Amino acid sequence: MFDTRFSAQIQERIDQKTKPLGALGQLEKLAHQLALIQSQGKADALVEITLEKPTVLVFAGDHGIAEEGVSIAPSAVTQQMVLNFLAGGAAVNCFCRANEVAIKVIDCGILLPVELGSPLLIQRRLGERTGNLATEPAMTQQQVQEGIVWGQNLVEDVINQGCNLVMFGEMGIGNTSSASALLAAVTGEPAERCVGFGTGVTTGQLEKKKRLVSQGVARCDSSQPLDLLAELGGFEIVQMVGGFLAAAKHRTPVLVDGFIVTVAALVATKIDPNCRDYLIFAHQSHESGHRIALEHLDAEPLLDLSLRLGEGTGAVLAVPLLRAAAEFYNNMASFTEAGVTV
Amino acid sequence: MFDTRFSAQIQERIDQKTKPLGALGQLEKLAHQLALIQSQGKADALVEITLEKPTVLVFAGDHGIAEEGVSIAPSAVTQQMVLNFLAGGAAVNCFCRANEVAIKVIDCGILLPVELGSPLLIQRRLGERTGNLATEPAMTQQQVQEGIVWGQNLVEDVINQGCNLVMFGEMGIGNTSSASALLAAVTGEPAERCVGFGTGVTTGQLEKKKRLVSQGVARCDSSQPLDLLAELGGFEIVQMVGGFLAAAKHRTPVLVDGFIVTVAALVATKIDPNCRDYLIFAHQSHESGHRIALEHLDAEPLLDLSLRLGEGTGAVLAVPLLRAAAEFYNNMASFTEAGVTV
Repeated sequence: MFDTRFSAQIQERIDQKTKPLGALGQLEKLAHQLALIQSQGKADALVEITLEKPTVLVFAGDHGIAEEGVSIAPSAVTQQMVLNFLAGGAAVNCFCRANEVAIKVIDCGILLPVELGSPLLIQRRLGERTGNLATEPAMTQQQVQEGIVWGQNLVEDVINQGCNLVMFGEMGIGNTSSASALLAAVTGEPAERCVGFGTGVTTGQLEKKKRLVSQGVARCDSSQPLDLLAELGGFEIVQMVGGFLAAAKHRTPVLVDGFIVTVAALVATKIDPNCRDYLIFAHQSHESGHRIALEHLDAEPLLDLSLRLGEGTGAVLAVPLLRAAAEFYNNMASFTEAGVTV
Repeated sequence: MFDTRFSAQIQERIDQKTKPLGALGQLEKLAHQLALIQSQGKADALVEITLEKPTVLVFAGDHGIAEEGVSIAPSAVTQQMVLNFLAGGAAVNCFCRANEVAIKVIDCGILLPVELGSPLLIQRRLGERTGNLATEPAMTQQQVQEGIVWGQNLVEDVINQGCNLVMFGEMGIGNTSSASALLAAVTGEPAERCVGFGTGVTTGQLEKKKRLVSQGVARCDSSQPLDLLAELGGFEIVQMVGGFLAAAKHRTPVLVDGFIVTVAALVATKIDPNCRDYLIFAHQSHESGHRIALEHLDAEPLLDLSLRLGEGTGAVLAVPLLRAAAEFYNNMASFTEAGVTV
């Protein structure tokens, strides 16, 4: 269980900093959460927040539902974007360079595998692509189990390499449909409300997407998260769910990206409610279902920049706010230290 | 005049990046603005956005109205906080360290001058403190003119030293009262709407603050910005106004901090409307008048973290977003470069 023993002590330290009470707003809550996470299992209250080797794992997977034309792009683009990640040319690469964040790319099962050897690429293929969730299970129970274990292992590996802040990103043509379906099925929200424009489909495509997602959700006769992942999930989504479970187990914060990653986080909390304590929400994206997912997680995202790209871009953009929170928690003077008489 | 000749070319470059159209939301607008600013006076469209030696100038000044008890702290705290800045212990110092931003502190006229020699400190004292704006002019016309020139020179100095992104911060017990009065007088908004809780006064103090600010605004019989600065301004505010004028003259973007800095920016645009093109708005603060000032500037701030501290903290926190925008503008692959077929 999450230990809140040092909560008051951490708050007292924040309140003694040379500023009016609460004047750093959300950054104070952020520092408090980071300090509390990093004091788990400690005998004394935390002295210093550390952010070591922040790493974004970008999970890529293809989706059978993409055949229905619910995206602006064909499944082939998933591979093309994976190659772009490996070449350092995508938005997430730019933000990683700007913010000194490490990146790894996981092929969780994309239609056209990448032949290129790259130190950034990890192959964890659960298949070629998922089944079309509108009419059939996306994958088998065994694939769900395997994907979760693989995702856990991936996160454990980066933690073992000294990373103590993980982020997940994703790429997969059709994956907003899968995330919308999961969101509806897990929360009971109407499927139509959970479906949005994704990469920017037409209103005609949007209607079709709503119909297909609703059809998929209606197929499900279980409310168990693992069953719903099999019926409606994606290969990248199940591996992210495993990643969230491992991060919580290892008491490591996850900076949560946009719609698809947030839905994976929500599913993970349905499997293990302890996950929630380790989640930091990077941003509110432009995708309409994201707000619903965030509300169900009682989340207060840090940024709101109308992003709708995925890849982990929003999470990586928020890393400097965590560094700023750590720096003020660690090194800002107290009233006593500075001789300020308020 | 601001040259928008390369606007379409800049947008075309952004639209060719490997992402759905508009998917980077506000960061795309930010990159566009930075590219357009940096292409001023150029013969060809900008190849690369550069952000060199970003610097925050923290202007400190004391206010006669503080004697009325409109703040949670006495004027002596202005000096104490200046000493805190010089020692590197304040929030703005922490964020400067986290985000690699340089800082300078300007004594524009604080009640208790700092005796300490420090490479960070610049003395530009317009007086000991302003007059009590509720009942008398804050300063003379000559002080306004002198303060504007000094602020211009300060910004020209940092630009000459190679900085191409400036930020202003402020410290001064009582300065939200001065900013509220200026905001009301410059915009015609009711003074009561322009007054907020500042550092966190009681509701009793808030009522008094509203009354005194209204009284000050009612005293003014001119609508000229320079006259209003003399009647209602602060020594730090007039120097920031000069800073905004110089930045525009030298085609240099200013990343605008919170309430008081935004009001200084608004006043500067009343003196020279060209200033507006060089303003990037860092954040929406918790102070109620800030929203009004931002609306009058038609601003779309980048962050909304419920900050209410000043010092330049919000501006410094937004610097990584500018670096991320520059990096994607400069180095993100186009569809053609990456072989992505959308």
